[in-house]
Amino acid sequence: MIHNPVDLIRKKRNGKKLSKDEIQFLITEYTKGKIPDYQFAAFLMATYFQGMDFEETTDLMQAMMRSGEVLDLSDIRKPKIDKHSTGGVGDKVSLILAPLVASCGICVPMISGRGLGHTGGTLDKLESIPGFRTDLSVRDFKKQLKKIGVAMIGQTAEIAPADKNMYALRDVTATVDSIPLIAASIMSKKLAEGLDGLVLDVKFGSGAFMRDFKKAEKLANTLIQIGKRSGVKVLALLTDMNNPLGAYVGNSLEVLETIEALKGKGPRDLMEVTFALGELMLEIAKIKGGRKLLDKKITNGEALSKFKEIISYQNGDTGIIENYSRLPVAKNKLRVLAQRTGYVHDIDNFQIGMLLVKLGGGRLRKEDKIDPSCGFRVYKKIGDFVKKGECLIEIISDNQTKANAVQKQMQNVFTIHKKPCRRNRLIREIIY
Amino acid sequence: MIHNPVDLIRKKRNGKKLSKDEIQFLITEYTKGKIPDYQFAAFLMATYFQGMDFEETTDLMQAMMRSGEVLDLSDIRKPKIDKHSTGGVGDKVSLILAPLVASCGICVPMISGRGLGHTGGTLDKLESIPGFRTDLSVRDFKKQLKKIGVAMIGQTAEIAPADKNMYALRDVTATVDSIPLIAASIMSKKLAEGLDGLVLDVKFGSGAFMRDFKKAEKLANTLIQIGKRSGVKVLALLTDMNNPLGAYVGNSLEVLETIEALKGKGPRDLMEVTFALGELMLEIAKIKGGRKLLDKKITNGEALSKFKEIISYQNGDTGIIENYSRLPVAKNKLRVLAQRTGYVHDIDNFQIGMLLVKLGGGRLRKEDKIDPSCGFRVYKKIGDFVKKGECLIEIISDNQTKANAVQKQMQNVFTIHKKPCRRNRLIREIIY
Repeated sequence: MIHNPVDLIRKKRNGKKLSKDEIQFLITEYTKGKIPDYQFAAFLMATYFQGMDFEETTDLMQAMMRSGEVLDLSDIRKPKIDKHSTGGVGDKVSLILAPLVASCGICVPMISGRGLGHTGGTLDKLESIPGFRTDLSVRDFKKQLKKIGVAMIGQTAEIAPADKNMYALRDVTATVDSIPLIAASIMSKKLAEGLDGLVLDVKFGSGAFMRDFKKAEKLANTLIQIGKRSGVKVLALLTDMNNPLGAYVGNSLEVLETIEALKGKGPRDLMEVTFALGELMLEIAKIKGGRKLLDKKITNGEALSKFKEIISYQNGDTGIIENYSRLPVAKNKLRVLAQRTGYVHDIDNFQIGMLLVKLGGGRLRKEDKIDPSCGFRVYKKIGDFVKKGECLIEIISDNQTKANAVQKQMQNVFTIHKKPCRRNRLIREIIY
Repeated sequence: MIHNPVDLIRKKRNGKKLSKDEIQFLITEYTKGKIPDYQFAAFLMATYFQGMDFEETTDLMQAMMRSGEVLDLSDIRKPKIDKHSTGGVGDKVSLILAPLVASCGICVPMISGRGLGHTGGTLDKLESIPGFRTDLSVRDFKKQLKKIGVAMIGQTAEIAPADKNMYALRDVTATVDSIPLIAASIMSKKLAEGLDGLVLDVKFGSGAFMRDFKKAEKLANTLIQIGKRSGVKVLALLTDMNNPLGAYVGNSLEVLETIEALKGKGPRDLMEVTFALGELMLEIAKIKGGRKLLDKKITNGEALSKFKEIISYQNGDTGIIENYSRLPVAKNKLRVLAQRTGYVHDIDNFQIGMLLVKLGGGRLRKEDKIDPSCGFRVYKKIGDFVKKGECLIEIISDNQTKANAVQKQMQNVFTIHKKPCRRNRLIREIIY
């Protein structure tokens, strides 16, 4: 049906609900270039203020998803389940989880993004493995899924092109922070993978995209509702991002930590989130065994073998598994020491992410290149006791000038007081 | 100072106040084409939702005004005062008022617009006078003002170009109905005339641009505040637009009614508004005499002579003053009769305006041409007693097909009940 774009903008502006047909019209015509950017920008801002209910958000997501190719993985007999994180600092869970659950018999068709601002990206981490390719064609992606049950690639031009255009426009019109727009964007790409189920790690706290717990919870509920209305089982964790996750932050350092984790030597917090998400994925897949099965796949080396297989299929150097020196890791280390004795009450985790950008390991704009070798090793987290002169965090970088600048600013990231401090639960909520 | 447009959009979106410098930046860069339409559209929608205070609105108006030429009429010794109406149905007050107060010694540099939708436009009415030119250059405009103290022309490219661009964008992005944007638009053009004072006729009711009295009052207050902060004395009337003003609606018919009014034969309602606005203009000009002086200028023919002078200076046929047949007035008349006896309780005045468009005497889009000869003669207004079979309104048009279609729809415009009905005051409020 043909609509007048101005009437639809006005309708949303006035807080009215748009029909499936009206939303479809807006997305289709915008993608075709028939609705100009200036009208779509006004629509986005009206949506920012008036919101959308679950039905509209689902219609929006589906129209965005159908703007491109929706994968048909029906010839793969395994349950097809993916995981998505809203992003954080030191969050390398996808790298461990994908091979781990794949070794349990789940098919994981993972399409990920790059890091931007203070949050890292799965693709950047994987690409620190020498030779690793993330730009597989849809054909090769499917072939690999059939053969080894897991593949980890980047966004292709065929998947949800409407989202790509919309995101670029939202970025320059201050319409990024809108829950329906965020939710439709995430789900349009994920559900284009042809999934049976999806688990979400929705983060809150200083290192998260959405700092506020209530907002993160609202986002999680919206994502679940979209899944429900689209026939895909979605479960979500709400996890605390006030601390970096695990001990390492930085691309090759996080690959190194991934391999350690798959060898059974992962830090407690990282493994807690990984196992919790893995259990949810097994639950959706109706595979019995839960945490015990996941533990076994690590102990018996099958999860690590699966990771090696991924690297091998995607042209990477599998030698890194046994020989970490084949990874591009900086040699020089600068320690940041505690100025007083006491307990860590707060960590400005956003700032840690931004200091990684400053060090060269992250990016502010999509087109920026990154240095995969640098990063941080975190020694103390919120609630930990620390003595004056003890190491809080280590800066790992071969660029002395940048490292010195970052060392100075890092001092203000940790807040230490005499009194003990409570540790918050890492997994705050599981939403079904 | 250089700002980032996204930051300014976000600031307004978050309900923060923009500084003079920030507003200036937005308007200047948008006018230069440095800020794209899509960012400006997002800014307009954010402003629609968050509003602007009087200071921001004044800064916006001044930036828009300074995007083009601001007339310097300082070599004209007379007080320079104009009038603006927010528009309505049958509102030909400007045509009577401009020569009337000019004949009292006020300089009236009137730049007007065209009709759009249900509201008529001064330019269209004037152009129904054979030969009349409204496209004078700024140079000729000033020359005429010096010689005869009044000129009535259309928007030129030199006056507030930012407003022209912004209006076009607002029109297609559903951001027209915003009081600060409306107020800044009106005042940027009017204050570019180099005025000492301005009187406003802010209309409310079914035939007005703003139907709601409270909104119209808010607009009037905003316009007055902008004037105050810009050193120009502004006074406003709030007048009822639930009835057509005067007896005629339609371009040449309203010129005819104007001449009759200047000959002392104007209908009561039309003259009430005209005299009230004229008195306010005399008050700002500090010219004594008030209503009596205005009456005198009509009785002694000076106001009519001034109108003849305007027509003559602007290339029009002055013969129309004595010979109405020189005006393009349609010959055929179709009467709309009352279906029952009773009192007129309501008139859908918006619909009368839209039926003029249907008849060909108005336009929906700026580029549409109009037929100046057609229109309506109104016989009954709200509160009037009418007998079954008596004429309510007459359709004057030489296009039989259109006239027949309009006649049918006109029947629903008048609501008649047995019980008597109160007449509302025409002038509801005077705002100083």
